[in-house]
Amino acid sequence: MSYEVELKFPVPDLSAFSKKLTDQAVSISLPHEEIDLYLAHPARDFSQTDEALRLRRKGDANFITYKGPKIDAATKTRREIELPLALGPESLASWTALLEAIGFRPVAEVKKSRRKAAVPWQGRRVEACLDEVAGVGTFVEFELIADESQIDAARKCIQSLAQSFGLIQSERRSYLELLLKGK
Amino acid sequence: MSYEVELKFPVPDLSAFSKKLTDQAVSISLPHEEIDLYLAHPARDFSQTDEALRLRRKGDANFITYKGPKIDAATKTRREIELPLALGPESLASWTALLEAIGFRPVAEVKKSRRKAAVPWQGRRVEACLDEVAGVGTFVEFELIADESQIDAARKCIQSLAQSFGLIQSERRSYLELLLKGK
Repeated sequence: MSYEVELKFPVPDLSAFSKKLTDQAVSISLPHEEIDLYLAHPARDFSQTDEALRLRRKGDANFITYKGPKIDAATKTRREIELPLALGPESLASWTALLEAIGFRPVAEVKKSRRKAAVPWQGRRVEACLDEVAGVGTFVEFELIADESQIDAARKCIQSLAQSFGLIQSERRSYLELLLKGK
Repeated sequence: MSYEVELKFPVPDLSAFSKKLTDQAVSISLPHEEIDLYLAHPARDFSQTDEALRLRRKGDANFITYKGPKIDAATKTRREIELPLALGPESLASWTALLEAIGFRPVAEVKKSRRKAAVPWQGRRVEACLDEVAGVGTFVEFELIADESQIDAARKCIQSLAQSFGLIQSERRSYLELLLKGK
């Protein structure tokens, strides 16, 4: 079973953060847009169970993602199952229709512009996402995918990386929670 | 919205039926195996709501299918949404895991050997499936996919085709229902 081990920080000045990365010879991708449609479960209150189900559009590519409850108090470590769907807007519309037919309901759409970088740290490559989230703010996320036995090591690795950038106060709430709170 | 207009008949002697088709110069495909995993909804009793959600494996190909309630008393006409999933057994295992994570539960597996034929009738090509269903029996299904405005015409077309083969007493229950009833 794969877990997503993640820390997220509000970073008001993304260009200053970018410069720190490029100063370390880390290259940053061009921005791409991700549009996430979050769905409510027909019988569970995901905001109570701390789960999420979403459809993500990234250019022509589509994905479905399930996120399980966070398993610790410090990071955003959680089970994640992400699966590719057929390409294109028609596929996404059909998936929305199928999920609605079985009782799922669209809750909100989170749009962000994301740049990615692979940051070498303690012998690993930590994925960093530089996010401008519409209606929410600017953030940096650090992420490793880990097996159950590797979760602790992965957590320590990304905590130490974040500290090296002076990032201390992490944000455990999801972009969806932050968006809904702001409304 | 697409509807599946379908009639199914128990046909004890499939080879005699096959011969009737080939006598009319209709070619029949080689058999392939379809393995359908039916899933129970976390909050709805699909046997009461007359819906179904299944994962289908057909060689290396995988599909998810939602079937809505039957909309008339005579045929098996119902809304159907079928979407392709990524290929291979690992993809199917991940899909099963995702659906289980959001509360769906495997109910039963229906295995069948299916041959297909496209039967010209009244200017349409009706899909005929010659099915040997493990633990259930042998059947012929006639099917057309129709828009809402075309449902009546499609129904009449396949009823007339079935009559031309002397098939009168249709079976409206699904293979899943027949399998569970026989257990």
